[in-house]
Amino acid sequence: MSQFWSESVHQLEPYVPGEQPKVTNLIKLNTNENPYPPSAKAIAAIQAANADSLRLYPDPNSDALKQSIANYYALETKQVFVGNGSDEVLAHTFQALLKHDAPLLFPDITYSFYPVYCGLYDIHYKTIALTDTFAININDYQQPNGGIIFPNPNAPTGVGLDLKDIETLIQNNASSVVVIDEAYIDFGGESAVALVNQFPNLLVCQTLSKSRSLAGLRVGFAVGHPDLIAGLERVKNSFNSYPIDRLAEQGAIAAMADQTYFDATCHKIITSRDFLTQQLKQLGFKVLPSQANFVFTQHPTHDAEKISAYLRSQAIIVRHFKQERIAQYLRITIGRHDECVLLVQALKEYLKGS
Amino acid sequence: MSQFWSESVHQLEPYVPGEQPKVTNLIKLNTNENPYPPSAKAIAAIQAANADSLRLYPDPNSDALKQSIANYYALETKQVFVGNGSDEVLAHTFQALLKHDAPLLFPDITYSFYPVYCGLYDIHYKTIALTDTFAININDYQQPNGGIIFPNPNAPTGVGLDLKDIETLIQNNASSVVVIDEAYIDFGGESAVALVNQFPNLLVCQTLSKSRSLAGLRVGFAVGHPDLIAGLERVKNSFNSYPIDRLAEQGAIAAMADQTYFDATCHKIITSRDFLTQQLKQLGFKVLPSQANFVFTQHPTHDAEKISAYLRSQAIIVRHFKQERIAQYLRITIGRHDECVLLVQALKEYLKGS
Repeated sequence: MSQFWSESVHQLEPYVPGEQPKVTNLIKLNTNENPYPPSAKAIAAIQAANADSLRLYPDPNSDALKQSIANYYALETKQVFVGNGSDEVLAHTFQALLKHDAPLLFPDITYSFYPVYCGLYDIHYKTIALTDTFAININDYQQPNGGIIFPNPNAPTGVGLDLKDIETLIQNNASSVVVIDEAYIDFGGESAVALVNQFPNLLVCQTLSKSRSLAGLRVGFAVGHPDLIAGLERVKNSFNSYPIDRLAEQGAIAAMADQTYFDATCHKIITSRDFLTQQLKQLGFKVLPSQANFVFTQHPTHDAEKISAYLRSQAIIVRHFKQERIAQYLRITIGRHDECVLLVQALKEYLKGS
Repeated sequence: MSQFWSESVHQLEPYVPGEQPKVTNLIKLNTNENPYPPSAKAIAAIQAANADSLRLYPDPNSDALKQSIANYYALETKQVFVGNGSDEVLAHTFQALLKHDAPLLFPDITYSFYPVYCGLYDIHYKTIALTDTFAININDYQQPNGGIIFPNPNAPTGVGLDLKDIETLIQNNASSVVVIDEAYIDFGGESAVALVNQFPNLLVCQTLSKSRSLAGLRVGFAVGHPDLIAGLERVKNSFNSYPIDRLAEQGAIAAMADQTYFDATCHKIITSRDFLTQQLKQLGFKVLPSQANFVFTQHPTHDAEKISAYLRSQAIIVRHFKQERIAQYLRITIGRHDECVLLVQALKEYLKGS
């Protein structure tokens, strides 16, 4: 606390990201990073970027990157917004599109940055309980609101919502912005990008951090009606003219273009997720059906925090949230196959010994 | 305009950065970039960064970068804040430290992003006129305020303020935060970093975009009392956990460490500034005394906008602001010596022909 802080700062409860340990030789299954490296073409594009040109500002509009995303989804560039990771895209989205008199709605169990953004921008919000099976029931969102946001598939549950339900939700809330946060969509969900040309109130956010293995480069984007994008641009251009650096732009463009590597990587992760799910179930774990690059799992007779601590002692880190309804769950990122095998072995040891 | 925008978005007047042309072969003297490439050590550090590691998030706290800046200025890391360019650092500063009941004070002629930030965060502000010689008179800031900010040297004038005056200003405003925006300090000004251990209400912002030739990499920082830094961290961690990507962090650390190259580059720019100033004066221009990597200049009988348009026709771009008091001035970035020579030749042609 300090007399010099703006008043609103005293009330903030900042987001706490998963641990980024500074030691190596850990099996890191706690922050949903991709276990495979970025596309070699992305690395080559970064290496090929003109080092001398780093003395110059980047393109403030990142037009080339927007074009590559527009091409990927057969959209126009004015339907594309880019930012320094999807967290920055989401921050601008909350400020630009989700602050209204009626409350913003999002699930009680969801990405825990959402209430933080609401605190930062003084946005009135209301959480809607997931069902007993951790599903989103779109009927629960049939109430006055100033916007709706949730991840699909949801985090940290991994549970997906059908595109048909999303379409109904958007239609039922035609005077609010509906934001679908698709950080994990490429691992088996149905993307709502297919709907952006139909609905002026739909914004879809994605990231290159997960399915394109570029968490370290910080690039995210949103697609939607040009009017929504224009609102985001107004806020972005009142905050930081140049959020995407020259190397990030080149790497991101090359990553978007390498469909073969992207497909192969996503396929490997889905295969490992199926393997891990089956193995966990054999050990007695309950595993929620996941469309993401992680599973959300609970053992009926073993405490989640204790399992997490044991895994940590075995140099395996997973994510545990001390939060109502999910305190007995672990969120485990899908690693390489050999990492999944080591995780299962460690869990077997733990269950045998306790 | 859109019904979906948050109310505040309708009123925003976003910042307009200088043109970043997509054609080459221009002499680009319009956005105060460094004419010399980044340190070869910075480039080597980026090239040496583990490409595979880009799949992992960066360190959310950028501890290694903070340590390198702390080392550079003999401070502690808790006195250092880093961001995606000093524009992001400034944005967080406005939100975290400069929103109070009393108005924020800054000069009438200054960095034109300041009123934009005030619009973004709904901060009440009051501008204080520079003197007739475009100087800051610290006595004019002796009035109730919720904070004071200005660049030193000021932009777009290049005029510096003595450290003694800055110290007096900080002492006279002990209950407000005083932010000194030192984007251009390395080209001849006296840095207020020397005062941060003395005054808990002083924040100094700097950037690697200018003197360290890394505008394209997006790294800026602030140093000050740990309580001020803690306020900035609260806002940053409520906005984006990972603003500095892995490559930017490595490049910035190496650039901070290469004192020899930094000294040589700054020296060359100062020498060219002296040369250009003298040449402009010989052509009849009035040139404000500059401590920056640009000069602010006016011709007594030739219209600034017309000169700018002529230079553009000769493939030289400089910056002209359509703003009261300075509409007859041009801001010209200091280029390489050969670029300064070509600029002077073009101006000679123009003055001869008109």
